[in-house]
Amino acid sequence: MYVIGIGAGDPDHLTLEAVAAMNRTDVFFTIDKGDAKGDLAGLRADLLARHVTRPHRVVTARDPQRDRSAATAGYAAAVGDWQERRAALYERMLADELGDDGAGAFLVWGDPALYDGTLRILDGIGARGGVAFDVVSIPGISAVQALAAAHRVVLNRVGRPFLVTTGRRLADEGPPPGVDDVVVMLDAVDAFAAVPADGPDSRWDIYWGAYLGTPDQVLVHGDLREVRDEIARLRAELRARKGWIMDTYLLRRYAR
Amino acid sequence: MYVIGIGAGDPDHLTLEAVAAMNRTDVFFTIDKGDAKGDLAGLRADLLARHVTRPHRVVTARDPQRDRSAATAGYAAAVGDWQERRAALYERMLADELGDDGAGAFLVWGDPALYDGTLRILDGIGARGGVAFDVVSIPGISAVQALAAAHRVVLNRVGRPFLVTTGRRLADEGPPPGVDDVVVMLDAVDAFAAVPADGPDSRWDIYWGAYLGTPDQVLVHGDLREVRDEIARLRAELRARKGWIMDTYLLRRYAR
Repeated sequence: MYVIGIGAGDPDHLTLEAVAAMNRTDVFFTIDKGDAKGDLAGLRADLLARHVTRPHRVVTARDPQRDRSAATAGYAAAVGDWQERRAALYERMLADELGDDGAGAFLVWGDPALYDGTLRILDGIGARGGVAFDVVSIPGISAVQALAAAHRVVLNRVGRPFLVTTGRRLADEGPPPGVDDVVVMLDAVDAFAAVPADGPDSRWDIYWGAYLGTPDQVLVHGDLREVRDEIARLRAELRARKGWIMDTYLLRRYAR
Repeated sequence: MYVIGIGAGDPDHLTLEAVAAMNRTDVFFTIDKGDAKGDLAGLRADLLARHVTRPHRVVTARDPQRDRSAATAGYAAAVGDWQERRAALYERMLADELGDDGAGAFLVWGDPALYDGTLRILDGIGARGGVAFDVVSIPGISAVQALAAAHRVVLNRVGRPFLVTTGRRLADEGPPPGVDDVVVMLDAVDAFAAVPADGPDSRWDIYWGAYLGTPDQVLVHGDLREVRDEIARLRAELRARKGWIMDTYLLRRYAR
């Protein structure tokens, strides 16, 4: 089983390693997540048509519904339950569709090592013991990297750390003390808008991007106090227009 | 000026976007860092021979020496001074070697947005005002992603943050409170060996890798208490044998 990172949205994010793995794949497994992620399905079909030169099949299953209403306390549990149902679904697909020496693949947005559940689910299937398989993980360009490239910015400052976190965490806990560079993925709650940006000691810059690497890419950069309303408005507008939004941002604290 | 991430060591880490940018480049600028980085020069030559189909030149300059003896307090200053001398060198190269509409490129290990100074130096040259140019940053697979892929591990746990930091920081400050997943790059001091791993409340796993993505790749994974001596020994041996080492690791804290 290959788990192949296909990049953040630009078909040219694909690596040569990913193209090679796709051309060793017999069956591409895809999960139908409903209309919101139709653009991923479109990108995937485009990549297969463009780069896969050998015969292959595409097998699609319907994704189990996930409880997205859970608060932070229940979040890990909700994700765990959903991943358990997903594992059962994937196990059945692997057993039914893949021959003894067959090679299957999941194509995932970004990088399989960054806020993606596929590797964990395959671990879970392995632990269930019903089917035996090896896993190969192929890194891909993540939205964070596409963000940095689009803004021509470096994620870390010289010799200093940066934190990668979720919007939910940032909203619940605020920016962690001692860390002045924070990358936020999966923000469903406009967490940036609540970051205290008027303190006497510091100000925050934000580097924000949506639909990174695609023709719809939108970028905003500026002092958080000055641009946060614009970003909140853009997020609402874009989500309404397109039906979904995928964005990420870097918050960078400066001493005044 | 393109700043092109070429991946962590595997020539197949190259993205299609990077290949396209390399084929729009007139002059590849390289910095001779002495024997320690001869392998990067070799990989670069290999990538150009394999993927660049149009006429191009390669221009090499000798890197200014950097004071690597500075302690943490002086580290940013030492890097700043070295980057200033580098900026002067790069500015001269750009002015001398590139025509008015010419396209130049730097090929950098990993991703230009992750612990690489090239984008900052180009910003510095732009600020000096002597030559005018646009910058395009092309993301690449970083050593951190190659590490995660080699271990088939996800960098974050569900809904949780992770920190990316340097060996120097980890050695000086220890693991930051409240963060249980720490990725360490640029560790010249075996900082992992000094992480308190015998506490009553927690243990650390380490996922370590050297020469990631190359035929020389070495991986170790285990309880930090059990494998830290082995990793320290391996680092010394490999560095002695090859003349240099490039490694990275993930520290993951578990409740006991």
